[in-house]
Amino acid sequence: MAYRSPVAEIRFILDKVVPFAPLAETERFAEATGETVEAVLTEAGRLCDEVMAPLSRAGDLHPARLENGVVRSSPGFKEAYAQIAEGHWVAVAATQEYGGMGLPQTLCVAINDMMSGANLALQLNPLLTQGQIEALEHHASEEIKALYIPKLIAGTWSGTMNLTEPQAGSDVGALRTKAEPQGDGTYAITGQKIFISWGDSDLTENICHLVLARLPDAAPGTKGISLFMVPKRLPDAAGNPGVANSLKVVSLEHKMGLHGSPTCVMSFEGATGWMVGEPNKGMAAMFTMMNNARLAVGVQGIGIAEGAYQKALDYARERVQFGPIIAHADVRRMLAEMRAEIFAARAIALACAVALDMGRATGKEGWHARAALLTPIAKAYGTDVGIHVADQGIQVHGGMGFIEETGAAQYLRDVRVTAIYEGTNGIQAMDLVGRKMMDEGRAAFRLLQEVEDAAKAAREALPDLAEAVWQAAETMREATEALIAQSTQDRFAGAVPYLRAFARVLGAHYHLQAALADGARAKLAAIYIRRILPQAEADLAAARAGAVDLFALSPEDLGA
Amino acid sequence: MAYRSPVAEIRFILDKVVPFAPLAETERFAEATGETVEAVLTEAGRLCDEVMAPLSRAGDLHPARLENGVVRSSPGFKEAYAQIAEGHWVAVAATQEYGGMGLPQTLCVAINDMMSGANLALQLNPLLTQGQIEALEHHASEEIKALYIPKLIAGTWSGTMNLTEPQAGSDVGALRTKAEPQGDGTYAITGQKIFISWGDSDLTENICHLVLARLPDAAPGTKGISLFMVPKRLPDAAGNPGVANSLKVVSLEHKMGLHGSPTCVMSFEGATGWMVGEPNKGMAAMFTMMNNARLAVGVQGIGIAEGAYQKALDYARERVQFGPIIAHADVRRMLAEMRAEIFAARAIALACAVALDMGRATGKEGWHARAALLTPIAKAYGTDVGIHVADQGIQVHGGMGFIEETGAAQYLRDVRVTAIYEGTNGIQAMDLVGRKMMDEGRAAFRLLQEVEDAAKAAREALPDLAEAVWQAAETMREATEALIAQSTQDRFAGAVPYLRAFARVLGAHYHLQAALADGARAKLAAIYIRRILPQAEADLAAARAGAVDLFALSPEDLGA
Repeated sequence: MAYRSPVAEIRFILDKVVPFAPLAETERFAEATGETVEAVLTEAGRLCDEVMAPLSRAGDLHPARLENGVVRSSPGFKEAYAQIAEGHWVAVAATQEYGGMGLPQTLCVAINDMMSGANLALQLNPLLTQGQIEALEHHASEEIKALYIPKLIAGTWSGTMNLTEPQAGSDVGALRTKAEPQGDGTYAITGQKIFISWGDSDLTENICHLVLARLPDAAPGTKGISLFMVPKRLPDAAGNPGVANSLKVVSLEHKMGLHGSPTCVMSFEGATGWMVGEPNKGMAAMFTMMNNARLAVGVQGIGIAEGAYQKALDYARERVQFGPIIAHADVRRMLAEMRAEIFAARAIALACAVALDMGRATGKEGWHARAALLTPIAKAYGTDVGIHVADQGIQVHGGMGFIEETGAAQYLRDVRVTAIYEGTNGIQAMDLVGRKMMDEGRAAFRLLQEVEDAAKAAREALPDLAEAVWQAAETMREATEALIAQSTQDRFAGAVPYLRAFARVLGAHYHLQAALADGARAKLAAIYIRRILPQAEADLAAARAGAVDLFALSPEDLGA
Repeated sequence: MAYRSPVAEIRFILDKVVPFAPLAETERFAEATGETVEAVLTEAGRLCDEVMAPLSRAGDLHPARLENGVVRSSPGFKEAYAQIAEGHWVAVAATQEYGGMGLPQTLCVAINDMMSGANLALQLNPLLTQGQIEALEHHASEEIKALYIPKLIAGTWSGTMNLTEPQAGSDVGALRTKAEPQGDGTYAITGQKIFISWGDSDLTENICHLVLARLPDAAPGTKGISLFMVPKRLPDAAGNPGVANSLKVVSLEHKMGLHGSPTCVMSFEGATGWMVGEPNKGMAAMFTMMNNARLAVGVQGIGIAEGAYQKALDYARERVQFGPIIAHADVRRMLAEMRAEIFAARAIALACAVALDMGRATGKEGWHARAALLTPIAKAYGTDVGIHVADQGIQVHGGMGFIEETGAAQYLRDVRVTAIYEGTNGIQAMDLVGRKMMDEGRAAFRLLQEVEDAAKAAREALPDLAEAVWQAAETMREATEALIAQSTQDRFAGAVPYLRAFARVLGAHYHLQAALADGARAKLAAIYIRRILPQAEADLAAARAGAVDLFALSPEDLGA
């Protein structure tokens, strides 16, 4: 069977698990009623299933290629993108001021989830545009907003992020690209950028590069970085794409997966750019873009997990070896755990999105802090689940999983990068135990208290499951207290297992809420709580171990 | 830096952790002294580092291909194979009776480990020949032995295993290939086989297919399967390759990795074959071949893990982002855990090999049972470690890990199949909790008792680590008692986590032995015992959960 967008599953989570309804009670999102949600998701789901998913394998087999300096997209991508743009699906959360639908971010996240499962390589294009619109909305001048945002929303132009340089990856402050004022309000941008997703394509009539660069007198490090809009074609007086700017694609990377998405080495050779935001404040603007992009990347992992799971489930129902293999306990174990992990990761991502929207709609600090806390968890756990589920999807297929024809392997090859880009999962974990604990853990304790209270309230209905969740939350609370007493180095040494444990506790919480709302869900909740949640304790043991052991290892101990 | 065969590490394990010395005290392996080990491993290591490893990427970039019905190997493979054969490295454990070196299987395992890390696709060719030699030694007539084994040992002919058919994978008994007696002692073999690794090549002058097929009057299922030797070219009177047999390669699979190893669809069209062993006893003969192949595949995982780890370590020492990235706690965590897992998996595999050899040399049942118990653990854990370490190797590389040029991704793509072939890791786990517990857990309890005794003896020298290992072994013992009381279905539902927990306990045990033998090793032992061993308890929680939860899930609960 082909990919089916998980519309009903997302609706269930929004209705019963991470309630979306309060959003429609705010002024800002008054239109986001249940009917709107249903209509929007159903329509987007149709596009995913009928237009995007059937092209995913063509993207893998026939990668985007560079021809005479221009990127030619994979077969069918141009036509499919046109349907995405015509359906107004590029950026459903963009404000109405510039022609957007102004829907809650939560719906955008849900649509990104479905689109990622359908065709990750193609979905990455509008996703980057979404991030650019948001950065411009917050930081650009009125002129730039008016010129660019409507075209980005309409999808006739697309957006990219240009941060990385060969020597400046996670250490963005090491970048060297220069921006020289030209005396007319514009800047001449010169430098080389790498890993630029969709840095060029034939999908849109213009490509808008947001580029981080240094002014001539800029301070070293991140405090001397400014942000510039550098379009591929300079807008003419009417705002249409005019003469070519001085920039080019040098080459495309040969990647493990995501072949349908061209990853460009870009060369800016005195290209004309306009500053976005204030001088030397480029990092702040970039963070606006990256923050939501982090949640979006987590959701990419979840979408791929959904696609990989569906394919494995279909295979397990059809493949006969001593009866249909889905009847074998170990195959059922894999499938059940895959589905339980996907539910947990999706609930966390949607809870993060709801918190973002509630923060925007109400301005309340508690929602902002909740969203900030959940963002690195949603990103790292969503992508870890994506990788794990795709890997298990291969395993369910047995020997056929290793044969590219089935498509099981492509999911793993495509999703692998999501644990790396937009900040590696290690960096997400450091953000969680570092920046996100600068409130002495207040946001974390508040969330864990909610989990404990909810577990207590569930004791009568689901005694065993509720007790296990309460106990895990209590252990997590103690681990968080211990974390706050640790040195930064010790925190960092345990950051990844700490984040994973936090995600497992939250996943168990949302499973419990699902089980309370719908008794049939208690079965999947039991799989998660009895089989997966116990790993949280093991992860917390690793988190407590601190950095001393690690730094005691000499180069010889590491075999160097 | 290029790949370096881990000669010193393997020597350390054989000297101090899973003592190899008692083997040299047996009559059969009297020649296997420390000097022999040192000389053999050093010489084999040179071949791996200088000849095999430099070709691994060429194998990935330029897959073996089918041209006019003949497989052309990847660039350089033919010349490298010739050096393997000339150096007598194809089958070092083959008996001296037919020209083999008669070295212990343990040394063969160690060499396979090093060769797998250097070039898995090429290593798979001699590995299959090793399995065939062993099957022939145990089951073939004297004529077949005398004709084939010397050529296989010399590497002028190579061997393949032909089990799988489209409808017969894990369920081998479903195979349909027919064998009709031709009245002259030979059989006409007709049928299609899939997933035949190295089913054809230009490396050797003949290819010897061991084919499972059914006699005309055979019973259904596994009891009606016989084994046949079906050479690509029929030997002439002088034993040289003569006329072509009626078989051909139909196509090659397009795989996720291991591109240098041609995976063939084979068609046998009345091909001439000779029976190996007795009629309808083909499965027993095949099991001889598969049993050692399982350990060998576990070792493939370990070899790849070694290669992936070395590459990640080199990158982490060279790559600068806020200083060399190896100075960051989370990168050190990944590297330390990778190295600790590799040591554990390698020690388990070598302990299994030593038990095999001791069993052969002494005939004692205790050694046979030990080897039988450790085989599925070595296979599943070795390949799981291979996949996990290759995955983490990508993560250490950050964005560069997703770019094929670095080679980090190839390790993951190549190793992924090892958790599937020679019996999926789920099937290994079922073997462990099923067949290998038919002695009511005697072999398991004996091993766990040794672990507990060793931990007790280590309490004075390394109190914390020893206590943790003792406690984990005790928990494992209790879990094993619980397992034996479970129904088969419940056992199977928990088989994979049970196996993983067993491996973790054994890994911790060997780390403790290493730490006792060499104080500097206590640092890596601490990483394993404090950070990784706690996962055993979580796995045992999952193992205890049984099958009820899994089978309570309806198709709707699974989203079907």
